[in-house]
Amino acid sequence: MQMPEPNPAILAKKARIVERLRSVLPADAVIEDEMETRAYECDALTAYRCPPLAAVLPSSTEEVAAVLKICHEEGVPVVPRGSGTSLAGGALPTADSVILGVARMNEVLETDYADRIIRVQTGRTNLSVTGAVEEEDFFYAPDPSSQLACAIAGNIAMNSGGAHCLKYGVTTNNLLGVTLVQMDGTVVEIGGAHLDAGGLDLLGLICGSEGQLGVVTEATLRILRKPEGARPVLMGFDSNEVAGECVSDIIKAGVLPVAIEFMDRPCIRATEDFAKAGYPDCEALLIVEVEGSAAEIDEQLGLILQIARRHNPVELREAQSADEAARIWLGRKSAFGAMGNINDYMCLDGTIPVNELPYVLRRIGEMSREFGLDVANVFHAGDGNMHPLILFNANEPGQLETCEAFGAEILKLCVEVGGCLTGEHGVGIEKRDLMVDQYEPVDLETQMAVKDVFDPAWLLNPAKVFPLAASEGRRNVALAAE
Amino acid sequence: MQMPEPNPAILAKKARIVERLRSVLPADAVIEDEMETRAYECDALTAYRCPPLAAVLPSSTEEVAAVLKICHEEGVPVVPRGSGTSLAGGALPTADSVILGVARMNEVLETDYADRIIRVQTGRTNLSVTGAVEEEDFFYAPDPSSQLACAIAGNIAMNSGGAHCLKYGVTTNNLLGVTLVQMDGTVVEIGGAHLDAGGLDLLGLICGSEGQLGVVTEATLRILRKPEGARPVLMGFDSNEVAGECVSDIIKAGVLPVAIEFMDRPCIRATEDFAKAGYPDCEALLIVEVEGSAAEIDEQLGLILQIARRHNPVELREAQSADEAARIWLGRKSAFGAMGNINDYMCLDGTIPVNELPYVLRRIGEMSREFGLDVANVFHAGDGNMHPLILFNANEPGQLETCEAFGAEILKLCVEVGGCLTGEHGVGIEKRDLMVDQYEPVDLETQMAVKDVFDPAWLLNPAKVFPLAASEGRRNVALAAE
Repeated sequence: MQMPEPNPAILAKKARIVERLRSVLPADAVIEDEMETRAYECDALTAYRCPPLAAVLPSSTEEVAAVLKICHEEGVPVVPRGSGTSLAGGALPTADSVILGVARMNEVLETDYADRIIRVQTGRTNLSVTGAVEEEDFFYAPDPSSQLACAIAGNIAMNSGGAHCLKYGVTTNNLLGVTLVQMDGTVVEIGGAHLDAGGLDLLGLICGSEGQLGVVTEATLRILRKPEGARPVLMGFDSNEVAGECVSDIIKAGVLPVAIEFMDRPCIRATEDFAKAGYPDCEALLIVEVEGSAAEIDEQLGLILQIARRHNPVELREAQSADEAARIWLGRKSAFGAMGNINDYMCLDGTIPVNELPYVLRRIGEMSREFGLDVANVFHAGDGNMHPLILFNANEPGQLETCEAFGAEILKLCVEVGGCLTGEHGVGIEKRDLMVDQYEPVDLETQMAVKDVFDPAWLLNPAKVFPLAASEGRRNVALAAE
Repeated sequence: MQMPEPNPAILAKKARIVERLRSVLPADAVIEDEMETRAYECDALTAYRCPPLAAVLPSSTEEVAAVLKICHEEGVPVVPRGSGTSLAGGALPTADSVILGVARMNEVLETDYADRIIRVQTGRTNLSVTGAVEEEDFFYAPDPSSQLACAIAGNIAMNSGGAHCLKYGVTTNNLLGVTLVQMDGTVVEIGGAHLDAGGLDLLGLICGSEGQLGVVTEATLRILRKPEGARPVLMGFDSNEVAGECVSDIIKAGVLPVAIEFMDRPCIRATEDFAKAGYPDCEALLIVEVEGSAAEIDEQLGLILQIARRHNPVELREAQSADEAARIWLGRKSAFGAMGNINDYMCLDGTIPVNELPYVLRRIGEMSREFGLDVANVFHAGDGNMHPLILFNANEPGQLETCEAFGAEILKLCVEVGGCLTGEHGVGIEKRDLMVDQYEPVDLETQMAVKDVFDPAWLLNPAKVFPLAASEGRRNVALAAE
């Protein structure tokens, strides 16, 4: 691919910035070569790409502070990046920005089992947090599908969830404190290894703020004792509505499984072809998992099976061994891979009140026929966090645009029924222009005024979260004021 | 008591404001008579009193918006008030302020058992939220000691906890959405009956913001299915340290009781004299309660008793009936009344990492001798939320001041060991000047800049939360800018 001819003024500015960054970081921590910066041109929303001006890989809070101070002085936008697994374009660069990758910051700083906390640098991957404590039979609960790769920094930025968050909560429920570097290089400690705190709850504000307010370099996380055991049950139903009602009834009964996963027929078929997990041929599948001692598991599953039987399941299969449990989960865990194997897809994460599931699934089916694109549904049903996968062919002109339009309609539907645009992937660039469907102008104005406090020049993670016209307007006002 | 001579200019201003308030509220909802406004001169921190300019009792979000719009236009400070049970002076008026009481706003607006939510007006008392759903076997989890009286508005303002929050979390973990009226009368909806949302998490910010950012008029709350049963066990130990270690070991073992309450010898003695609950004569008592089915209770208590026995308890009494359970709780629930019966006391709520319990209790004992004032400790030990009660005689000159100085030292100790000033009562006026011990100047500046966004003129709940000099400075800057 032919690169556009570089502009001499931009080249000179880049040279100056790179030189300043080199003065505060080791030589191998500043990446400016065009071939190498291409590694940072996109995240997991690969339809959008843009190489950054440069990338830096600091190793400590001090180095992050030094980088931000320089970028602040130079007026250079900064895009913080965890592992780049965002499905919403949360780490997409702009051409004039410096990517600040936290991948080298992966140390465990402190572990305290009596207080049930671990303090880590935020470049550490989600799964390796559990890895650091599992010898003592502890674990870190939030489990995004990407947990092998995704960084705690990104989990905090997006307030990530996962299949087991129905019981244990999402990131914000498992985060106790952060070290935050503000855009001007100021380092602040927020929260800590204690319950609550006086004053305004900035910790809750930082979590899920998608890199708009600062760069989180260290985090104190809640760790939990591993349960004695876990057991899933597979349930097949002959309609999405009935499966949805079963989910509602389980939740209403007050029993709290660790996971309730939902797959519809297109998803069942694709995963069965791909992973051969032995799923039944039916309209909708639920995987319901409970945890605890053998007695607790028996009791909870007893109640759940009783509820399920009232909905005339076509299949009801309780795992009798670790092997059978793994087979039940095999299809669900292969679902995204299976879909990717047969199609391009866009994965949404709109979230709805649980009792709206049957209606929303029916409407998605109707819209699927209107837009002429198939949808496979696989999602965390227990907390209403949907994951419709819209299937399309990226090589066929116009299909991406149709897919995006269809996705927007699904997300608007989620908002209409009292839900929201995103349960865990974040707004990023993907949903920025849909924010006006979720929020009144005064709500967005308030959110942007809070951003003004932390990042008055609007340099942090530009062109994301807020409607593009609004955030560009804000940036221009800041530039004019300089 | 002789009232000071009123200033004619203030009287004229008051008359104008009262007239405008009367134009938007029913006649009986505006209180201006000096004898009647005295009912609002203090909250449960009764050492501080100041009658307000007037008080209003609106019945709807619209009326609240109309009141705030008028006060905003007139530059009159507003002090929002739930039920006035704050132990930190969170609802203390200033002489130039209008008290906005939400007591008349106590309707249930919506209940949905499948989604496990209830939407209420925030003047509704905590216990009556459970009252509205208990026929269907649901309950609202956060349970402050004042739950019979305290309003959801105050619970949200202070992010209130309670004895059973170890398992279910505090208010912020059970709050899904709010209707917030901003100081200028703008009404915004934040959150809702869904998981997470895009953009900045203003809901987390509002919860615990002590009326600094707006008035919350309606709230969507998580309700939970009542457990089948609950059973407490009473444990006596011959030192605070050993009891503290037992708490640490229970938490570390990963079993999650709904409550772990701790009482030390002065507290045991006082409550035993008062309530005659049959507590043993020992240095420290724990009440550990678990919930669930009979099988779950047996299993969890089995593990807890096994841990307790390793610490050589002088008493280990498992409730065998509802009567015995009630007797075990009787002393704990009477503790504050018992202390109030024999002494004036100041109740703190500093919060610490659980494994610092033994050290902090020892240091409090040493300081008690230095200051010459007794301390009784009764608290939620499972989550480190302490409640030292400093005993003093309000009629003896100087004792209140000594007590406050001693309290400040205890709270500083909590911060020193990695804890914080307040677990659930809030900062109010009580701890405002200690905020500099918890936060660096840059942290406080950031919090105050966020307040600027919501309340630029600093009219909402004045002279609280932030150090007095800082918030008065902010108010003066706002006045000068007008």
